Amino acid sequence: MTAVPVSLTDVRELVDGALRAAVGRLDPRTYRVAAYHLGWTDEEGRPRAAPAGKALRPALALLSARAALAPQESALPGAVAVELVHAFSLLHDDIMDGDRTRRHRPAAWTIFGEASAILAGDALLALAGEVLLEAPGQGSARAAHALAAATRGLIAGQSLDMDFETRRKISLDECVAMAAGKTAALLACSCAIGAVLDGAPESLSDALEAFGADLGIAFQLVDDLLGIWGDPDATGKPALSDVRSRKMSLPVVAALNAEGPHAERLAEMYGRADLSEDDLREVAALVEAAGGRAWAEREAERRIQRAAEHLASARLPEPVRAEFLRVADFVTRRDH
Amino acid sequence: MTAVPVSLTDVRELVDGALRAAVGRLDPRTYRVAAYHLGWTDEEGRPRAAPAGKALRPALALLSARAALAPQESALPGAVAVELVHAFSLLHDDIMDGDRTRRHRPAAWTIFGEASAILAGDALLALAGEVLLEAPGQGSARAAHALAAATRGLIAGQSLDMDFETRRKISLDECVAMAAGKTAALLACSCAIGAVLDGAPESLSDALEAFGADLGIAFQLVDDLLGIWGDPDATGKPALSDVRSRKMSLPVVAALNAEGPHAERLAEMYGRADLSEDDLREVAALVEAAGGRAWAEREAERRIQRAAEHLASARLPEPVRAEFLRVADFVTRRDH
Repeated sequence: MTAVPVSLTDVRELVDGALRAAVGRLDPRTYRVAAYHLGWTDEEGRPRAAPAGKALRPALALLSARAALAPQESALPGAVAVELVHAFSLLHDDIMDGDRTRRHRPAAWTIFGEASAILAGDALLALAGEVLLEAPGQGSARAAHALAAATRGLIAGQSLDMDFETRRKISLDECVAMAAGKTAALLACSCAIGAVLDGAPESLSDALEAFGADLGIAFQLVDDLLGIWGDPDATGKPALSDVRSRKMSLPVVAALNAEGPHAERLAEMYGRADLSEDDLREVAALVEAAGGRAWAEREAERRIQRAAEHLASARLPEPVRAEFLRVADFVTRRDH
Repeated sequence: MTAVPVSLTDVRELVDGALRAAVGRLDPRTYRVAAYHLGWTDEEGRPRAAPAGKALRPALALLSARAALAPQESALPGAVAVELVHAFSLLHDDIMDGDRTRRHRPAAWTIFGEASAILAGDALLALAGEVLLEAPGQGSARAAHALAAATRGLIAGQSLDMDFETRRKISLDECVAMAAGKTAALLACSCAIGAVLDGAPESLSDALEAFGADLGIAFQLVDDLLGIWGDPDATGKPALSDVRSRKMSLPVVAALNAEGPHAERLAEMYGRADLSEDDLREVAALVEAAGGRAWAEREAERRIQRAAEHLASARLPEPVRAEFLRVADFVTRRDH
């Protein structure tokens, strides 16, 4: 398994307390749903040990404070806020997409009902703004505005994603735009929020945000590659899971938009409801033969390179730059 | 029909443009759901004439700027933001409660589906913060924080309301707490937000908020009275609609918690699924006989009086105070 950079493991502990304090403000019924969704409790409300998630966004938020020469602790409200928005979006996405499983457990809505899960998501979103606006310092309003704008981008991405389900033809540009909203908007905000909280000049926060935007697209490309060719033991998802669900992921849309017989055969098979295990393997092979896999791998590399260039333009302290790059490296080389 | 104070009719025009500009930022699919929900368009996206709603919250927001001796236009971002949060909550409440009708039209989720309606609500909530944080002046962060906290209160109220549906016994205190969250929290915020935006001292914004909190409870009491004894021609709802849906409204809970045979008979009948029109009328009579109607009427009066006392303590300009009181009077004397 790919090694997780130190920052990602340390962060969970640092952020966990602040996150729990924030969520603890919710009314008891809403808290129960949120705590389950965040992996803190089981269906009965009993504490459970294993914390869920990669804490990628909080790690980037803390790093971004160091980019502005501020102590990473100063970005804690930002780290908590981006994680709250991330949790809100997963909670609502599972309802909207009808996904019954989240991180190897039943999705919150399947346990508590759709109504309670909708409400808990709403609460997490409102709470994110509340927490951020309590951060000391001049930058909190700017940070909260950036987070609200990122949330709008995230919602636009989800909206486009749902629209795709009703359509036969999706261009690659549209598919990238979807990932730019659904995945990259919040990652970009996470990469800058600590600097914004510290009142850093826009030239710095813009560069960090641009880094995060490209990192976010690379993240989604790798996610989509793992969704087809990932090792089930590492990803925790069944083999070929994205093919099984006919997900209009980036490699698939790239392949569908290629010319030639592979793309045509792929389009025909992807529209069918009844694919055998052999068929699923053939679909994956067609995505590869039509060039979808190679494109996605190249594009992920290109995005990471562009992300690194944005960083270089920002003149960060060398250890901070190196750590941002380690996270980028982790994102592209991870196997789950 | 009770006359609507001038402020409530003028406000819609003033706020409408700013509200449309804000909602116009949403992606086209989300915009469509929001515009329908706000009454601007029909199911096909065609403009329609009649704007919906009382614009009560925006009116209070603009008034609250004048309470701080600021021009009412300075509170426009606040007026837009509270209306966006109100719209968000109605959109999600209809899904959570399974209500198929809103303001004489099919609820948005019945037209666009639950997923799109959830997402549009999310977008309106995020947008409220974005708009507010773009307001010029020092008070915007404080206002956005107050609005986020009010949203948490609103959510806690809805959570309690959903909890009531699973329980047999509800105390009057719990029912008042539910109304304090679901109805009064956002009204209280609306009554102060213009002053907060202007950077008014907390003594003023606290007094305005306290006014709004009592006004909000009175508003809900009147709503609940109309839900049982309102004239269908004025309310636009079927007669006895809240009895039909077995709503645990304030007069009903007050009656259920009274001692005696009327309360007992009421509890027995309210638990039955099969009530005839005659039965519904008997239930309404039992709520009245058990003292629920009289209590609600008295309590609404008492809350309006308390609200007026909060205003008196704030030493507002006389015309502003008079207008706040006219709104309070409208709230309690309205027939719809």
